Amino acid sequence: MRIGIIGTGTVGQTLGSKLVSLGHEVTLGSRGKDNPAALDWAQRSGDGAHAGTFAEAAEFGELVVNATSGTVSLAAVELAGPERLAGKTLLDVSNPLVFSPEGEVTLDPVNDDSIGERLQRALPDTKVVKALNTVNNAIMVDPGSVPGPHQLFVAGQDADAKAQVKALLVEFGWPAEDILDLGGIDAARSLEMLMPFWLRLMRHYGHADFNYSIRTAR
Amino acid sequence: MRIGIIGTGTVGQTLGSKLVSLGHEVTLGSRGKDNPAALDWAQRSGDGAHAGTFAEAAEFGELVVNATSGTVSLAAVELAGPERLAGKTLLDVSNPLVFSPEGEVTLDPVNDDSIGERLQRALPDTKVVKALNTVNNAIMVDPGSVPGPHQLFVAGQDADAKAQVKALLVEFGWPAEDILDLGGIDAARSLEMLMPFWLRLMRHYGHADFNYSIRTAR
Repeated sequence: MRIGIIGTGTVGQTLGSKLVSLGHEVTLGSRGKDNPAALDWAQRSGDGAHAGTFAEAAEFGELVVNATSGTVSLAAVELAGPERLAGKTLLDVSNPLVFSPEGEVTLDPVNDDSIGERLQRALPDTKVVKALNTVNNAIMVDPGSVPGPHQLFVAGQDADAKAQVKALLVEFGWPAEDILDLGGIDAARSLEMLMPFWLRLMRHYGHADFNYSIRTAR
Repeated sequence: MRIGIIGTGTVGQTLGSKLVSLGHEVTLGSRGKDNPAALDWAQRSGDGAHAGTFAEAAEFGELVVNATSGTVSLAAVELAGPERLAGKTLLDVSNPLVFSPEGEVTLDPVNDDSIGERLQRALPDTKVVKALNTVNNAIMVDPGSVPGPHQLFVAGQDADAKAQVKALLVEFGWPAEDILDLGGIDAARSLEMLMPFWLRLMRHYGHADFNYSIRTAR
């Protein structure tokens, strides 16, 4: 499958490398042309790996991943071009973290809106699916590194798009039964709002190699 | 131990009954005098169970529990009287849920503040500890109903007060190693912000008998 990734940070690169290793063709898109990180990634990652602009990644992908920081995601998809994303699934893995000079972390938007919802409103002809924003990039593509069952969550308006994302997550190694559908794209709020808790846990454990396992009494 | 509970809803009653069954003496406090729910609870719950006002519960308790809805918690402790809570531990189990006429649930405060922090600011001479707001009332007092290890989280400024709350949670049946200290009272934000996710999970499972188990890779 041809996959475009918007964003060349650690998350974009990690997802891109995994997808290439699974036999997909990937264009890692950056804001400007000839981004050194993207070119370096493409060179390291083999034949299926290409570097391009946001627009080229969006054009290239049958499915597109938003791997930018949540606070710049709207601007990034505008640069990518909504028309190049029309009819496609956009997998949004972002978190809207805002870092204050004092080191405090908050979310923007939060509570009554989310990046997932904003992307869906900005791209009415695109099927936005929120997923993967609840785990560290290493665990995204190597769920078996955390022992025992632990869960991922998807949210979005379109059942087919969610099924498409789930299939990709299964390729990553996530057992289908551990991918919980939490509802429409408004459920992205609840997933993004996990981030402050996740950051506290990271501080508690001293690392980011953990995930949530939901245990039920029945 | 003498424990005061502010709030006569399901959470207050459930905690009160458990505490009485463990041999503690409890005053369940309501806004007005002779609250039927509190009187009925006291009559049902045996010798150690008393009904009173917010102020009487606060005066009575060596430790006091805030079991009101988060949106009215500040008003409730004002009625209880900050001077009656001075020097004591206040275990805050509330969530600031706001229900819109359309059935949407949001939090107030959220993101850069929390009920835990507001209570601590309003009660500078009281040691506020946030805990238990992340699980259903049934699981609060019967953690064994959820199989396998699963966690609770505490947040607060005072180490002794957190130790006191932990000891009480251990009495409830929580293994000490499953009670994670997430830091100062500002960590209450992250715990209160779990609520939208919790509500989505409740909808997904069709019941509230679940909890989070944090699985780590190392």
